[in-house]
Amino acid sequence: MSAASAGRLIGVGTGPGDPELLTLKAVRALEAADVLAYFAKEGRRGNGRAVVDGLLKPGLLELPLYYPVTVEIDKDHDDYKSQITGFYDASAAAVAEHLEAGRTVAILSEGDPMFYGSYMHLHVRLAGRFPVEVVPGITAMSGCWSLAGLPIVQGDDVLSVLPGTMAEDQLVRRLGDTEAAVIMKVGRNLPKIRRALVAAGKLDQALYVERGTMANSAMIPLAEKADDVAPYFSLVLVPGWKGRP
Amino acid sequence: MSAASAGRLIGVGTGPGDPELLTLKAVRALEAADVLAYFAKEGRRGNGRAVVDGLLKPGLLELPLYYPVTVEIDKDHDDYKSQITGFYDASAAAVAEHLEAGRTVAILSEGDPMFYGSYMHLHVRLAGRFPVEVVPGITAMSGCWSLAGLPIVQGDDVLSVLPGTMAEDQLVRRLGDTEAAVIMKVGRNLPKIRRALVAAGKLDQALYVERGTMANSAMIPLAEKADDVAPYFSLVLVPGWKGRP
Ligand SMILES: C[S@@+](CC[C@H](N)C(=O)[O-])C[C@H]1O[C@@H](n2cnc3c(N)ncnc32)[C@H](O)[C@@H]1O
Ligand SMILES: C[S@@+](CC[C@H](N)C(=O)[O-])C[C@H]1O[C@@H](n2cnc3c(N)ncnc32)[C@H](O)[C@@H]1O
Repeated sequence: MSAASAGRLIGVGTGPGDPELLTLKAVRALEAADVLAYFAKEGRRGNGRAVVDGLLKPGLLELPLYYPVTVEIDKDHDDYKSQITGFYDASAAAVAEHLEAGRTVAILSEGDPMFYGSYMHLHVRLAGRFPVEVVPGITAMSGCWSLAGLPIVQGDDVLSVLPGTMAEDQLVRRLGDTEAAVIMKVGRNLPKIRRALVAAGKLDQALYVERGTMANSAMIPLAEKADDVAPYFSLVLVPGWKGRP
Repeated sequence: MSAASAGRLIGVGTGPGDPELLTLKAVRALEAADVLAYFAKEGRRGNGRAVVDGLLKPGLLELPLYYPVTVEIDKDHDDYKSQITGFYDASAAAVAEHLEAGRTVAILSEGDPMFYGSYMHLHVRLAGRFPVEVVPGITAMSGCWSLAGLPIVQGDDVLSVLPGTMAEDQLVRRLGDTEAAVIMKVGRNLPKIRRALVAAGKLDQALYVERGTMANSAMIPLAEKADDVAPYFSLVLVPGWKGRP
């Protein structure tokens, strides 16, 4: 087939949870799409899909891509790697089939697609073969610091975005070497993150936010949070901007 | 006067330049506003104001806030500090007058308001006194890496956001100590940034983007850019994500 007849792939950022945080461009991408693809856990709909629920046109074909692994197991394990690689290959093939048939496929991505998003795994497999457009989304961190009314960086501040999955000593070192920090992927890493913030002398500045901008969002200074229970959709903000004029 | 009759302040992120990258929430904030405030250079309109140009309702009152300094002078100089502090104080007072009269004031901010935005200077002066809402915006970096189709971070990657204004040796050190980096505030810092990327062994991975998502945007691998001329609206992306599955 010729490239001219192939469909277009659109990676669509759905933002942190509030449907009002979709961009106009994302809304138009959903209008243009013939097929709506999204990652989800088996039997669930996924947050990205929930965000766009009120915006879908009749007749839109849905293509849920169900993860083979429901819990995060050791990512360096060979079994995990081959399973997940096979899953992304198969998902890309399923999307490619629609593109080859000339259909426009929108792939949803929570927050911003290129920022720790699963969409990237399909992007790298398909971008060379089909016309692709990426619609940026409001990141979870932007949604959370806006909700909190918390200025995060100004002037010459450095912002470090740190996955909560990293080793504790690295977390301590990096928290001590930055003006502002965002710690992503909190969940069951919270006890470790709390210890690292204490060691770096920054626990008192840390704000914990869960499900930011979703209907059931909550936030609390981390020092005041009594337990170490945190859902998947949670992050920690450590603001910079010391020299306020 | 009582707080009940006071107007509402809304900090509105306008995104990186493409009006389609406004959120639905930003559009509704503009509909709700009685007064539209924005920072600009004397005699200019400012990029945030240009982005919303097609969306303003008739009768909306405009409140441009003109910077007293047109070139960036040494920020540690006392004259600069007192001038700029006085300007932010006066600007906050001008906004407060409208809020006290019960008007809803939207203050535009390029990109995301809380992320290196001038809006923050008004936010900290007014947030304690009036009801405030912050509408997050697509950051310049999200707009640029999406435009480039460039996955920036995945998995355990650290992302460092580095102002190009920082000292060269610090830039070198931090570029060497992160998976991914975004260098903001490029402009006349480009020669220094280029030297730092060479010293950190990362020039070949660096993508230069100017006026990302605006009508006249351009991008080029930094190693291929022949000159060191860069406009204010430019940044450099150094992607992470080495271990692609
Ligand atoms: C795989 S990353 C995806 C990030 C997303 N692409 C973005 O642009 O922010 C998932 C992590 O994002 C954070 N996250 C996503 N949505 C969130 C929300 N509404 N509130 C708090 N954290 C959130 C959590 O730390 C979660 O572990
Ligand atoms: C004062 S900061 C404001 C950042 C903004 N609040 C955000 O959320 O991205 C200004 C810097 O943002 C970057 N920037 C803003 N818009 C841009 C664009 N459209 N393309 C490239 N860089 C941009 C430039 O590095 C510029 O020096």
